[in-house]
Amino acid sequence: MLDATSSYNPMGTRIPVADRTGHRTVPETTRSTERRLPGTRYGNRPTMKDVAARAGVGLKTVSRVVNGEPGVTPETERRVQEAIEALGFRRNDSARVLRKGRTASIGLVLEDLADPFYGPLSRAVEEVARAHGALLINGSSAEDADREQELVLALCARRVDGLVVIPAGDDHRYLEPELKAGVATVFVDRPAGHIDADVVVSDNFGGARDGVRHLIAHGHRRIGFIGDMPRIHTAAERLRGYRTAMEDAGIPVEDPWMSLGVTDPERVRRAAREMLSGPEPVTAIFTGNNRVTVTVIRVLAGHPRPVALVGFDDIELADLLQPGVTVVAQDAAALGRTAAERLFRQLDGTLLAPERIELPTRLITRGSGELPPAD
Amino acid sequence: MLDATSSYNPMGTRIPVADRTGHRTVPETTRSTERRLPGTRYGNRPTMKDVAARAGVGLKTVSRVVNGEPGVTPETERRVQEAIEALGFRRNDSARVLRKGRTASIGLVLEDLADPFYGPLSRAVEEVARAHGALLINGSSAEDADREQELVLALCARRVDGLVVIPAGDDHRYLEPELKAGVATVFVDRPAGHIDADVVVSDNFGGARDGVRHLIAHGHRRIGFIGDMPRIHTAAERLRGYRTAMEDAGIPVEDPWMSLGVTDPERVRRAAREMLSGPEPVTAIFTGNNRVTVTVIRVLAGHPRPVALVGFDDIELADLLQPGVTVVAQDAAALGRTAAERLFRQLDGTLLAPERIELPTRLITRGSGELPPAD
Repeated sequence: MLDATSSYNPMGTRIPVADRTGHRTVPETTRSTERRLPGTRYGNRPTMKDVAARAGVGLKTVSRVVNGEPGVTPETERRVQEAIEALGFRRNDSARVLRKGRTASIGLVLEDLADPFYGPLSRAVEEVARAHGALLINGSSAEDADREQELVLALCARRVDGLVVIPAGDDHRYLEPELKAGVATVFVDRPAGHIDADVVVSDNFGGARDGVRHLIAHGHRRIGFIGDMPRIHTAAERLRGYRTAMEDAGIPVEDPWMSLGVTDPERVRRAAREMLSGPEPVTAIFTGNNRVTVTVIRVLAGHPRPVALVGFDDIELADLLQPGVTVVAQDAAALGRTAAERLFRQLDGTLLAPERIELPTRLITRGSGELPPAD
Repeated sequence: MLDATSSYNPMGTRIPVADRTGHRTVPETTRSTERRLPGTRYGNRPTMKDVAARAGVGLKTVSRVVNGEPGVTPETERRVQEAIEALGFRRNDSARVLRKGRTASIGLVLEDLADPFYGPLSRAVEEVARAHGALLINGSSAEDADREQELVLALCARRVDGLVVIPAGDDHRYLEPELKAGVATVFVDRPAGHIDADVVVSDNFGGARDGVRHLIAHGHRRIGFIGDMPRIHTAAERLRGYRTAMEDAGIPVEDPWMSLGVTDPERVRRAAREMLSGPEPVTAIFTGNNRVTVTVIRVLAGHPRPVALVGFDDIELADLLQPGVTVVAQDAAALGRTAAERLFRQLDGTLLAPERIELPTRLITRGSGELPPAD
């Protein structure tokens, strides 16, 4: 039992709680302060015993009613139900987990909850989970391998039946005991490292190669590439696509044309401006993901000469800009749906060997990728 | 224990698993099929007993090591740790929940995982949860009151310590037993119905009123309003702001100027086109949220006359369109952060009465809201 002044610290570390300031606060009516009284907060949930006492029946009878088992007269069932409602009793699913082994929940580990790419992916995973009667538990690694591991193991400790993981790290041997213990796992967007696991990815290499070929077909030779950190699988694959398209066209790539790193606007802005300056500026840019594309669009909007642009990932309103933004689109919802369906096939026991599933990308031409070289 | 052909149905309903088709499938190496063998999937996690047997110590000693209690020699602790690693033993947090009462997790119930408005809000809640050592469990109601209730109660059954809820329904009396039992709860974006609970909202009324006043100040009198379903609190409040601004300016609102309903592009497109046709078309439109704004921008892009536009919610790239889109911006991250901090103050036991906290909105002028009437 907690005293009224103790901090919330279920894991045992004491962390000060930040004050909220600067907002208007309008107190409402205060009818129901009952739940705030110290001493009533925890550990006082009604139990089956309480229900049995109130209904004047045995514990086994309550258990039968709660679990929908036979052998209870309608009149007794009514009394038990009345007691359940009066006391606000609810079955504790944590106890069920321990008894039955399965929790009807799956975990989804994202890279960033705020990246719009993951919105349709998450929703698709949730839809599939729901169709299988399972709850989706969700969290993000913020592109930090330690945090990914912490979150994955926290979900496993809560006994999720399966995991859909967009990995931040590149070594997933920490998952081996969980896999052995039967936690179904599917990686999505990026593959697992050092373990065999199902993975669903877009054709990052082929999509980027086709996007750069498109720029080459429109007369460009000095083509820049601005991408995410090369340790991220998707970034490396898209860079490989860029290099392959250039090599296939017999264009030697010069170092200043490639810039890889974090996708924050400041870094991307600097990279774009560097490529666009000097005696031999690039005449076209291929951007490695939606975050990079949005920043490069802003740089090009303020640039004196037209510069061609093809971006990996579609972005909202890209068709209404002047020019419209040509993109290599992934199907984020299909990635999520495919991964989740695969997960439930693992849980069915119908899959034997891990597979790699690759979904195609789609080039959508809207104007920016069809601009000719400015010089 | 499940047999290999049974469907995943932990809740007891049998649902067929959809087949994935139409994607390239590339089998990978199959070194590790061990985890897929029937009979090894469930119920064979190593227990403390297994660890004790392997380390050649008693169960109490293993328990001491696992829970960081004193009274174990370094040599014994080393043997136990080796056994833990060799067996892949992990403490079962479901059991801890039952013993300790708190789970170090909070639930977040969203309206739609794919709406970009909820991205920064979710991330802010997660950051606060993490700062308090708690895991965020997340799900969406898809704007369905029954689904909201189902999800909230499922999270309560898993004994989350607290809930941040963006409600879909308007009657939350179903939560009363949970509140009594001590589940901390904060509503965000929209208030709770028929219960007293903390709520953090934007100033939807004032923001919409200021946006419409802005259009009136630029000479408009025939101003349309396209919003979400009026049973949604935010939609009703923004409509009230529109009506108040019009009334304050002495402009009688005509019925054809107001369109409320679902925000799917088809309905919004039709509504906008109707307002823009006829002998006395509107010269300006106020849009009730980001989903509506995006569709109206498309309609206006194809319209022969310039029409002024102010939208509720900011949208990405709004500044780069021609004209730039004037918006009433909410601070989605501040909503999430404020709600989550409030939740942890409840869990600290430092709050007594439920409050309503209202965050200000911000008018951002970019061009579309400053266009004069076209006639």
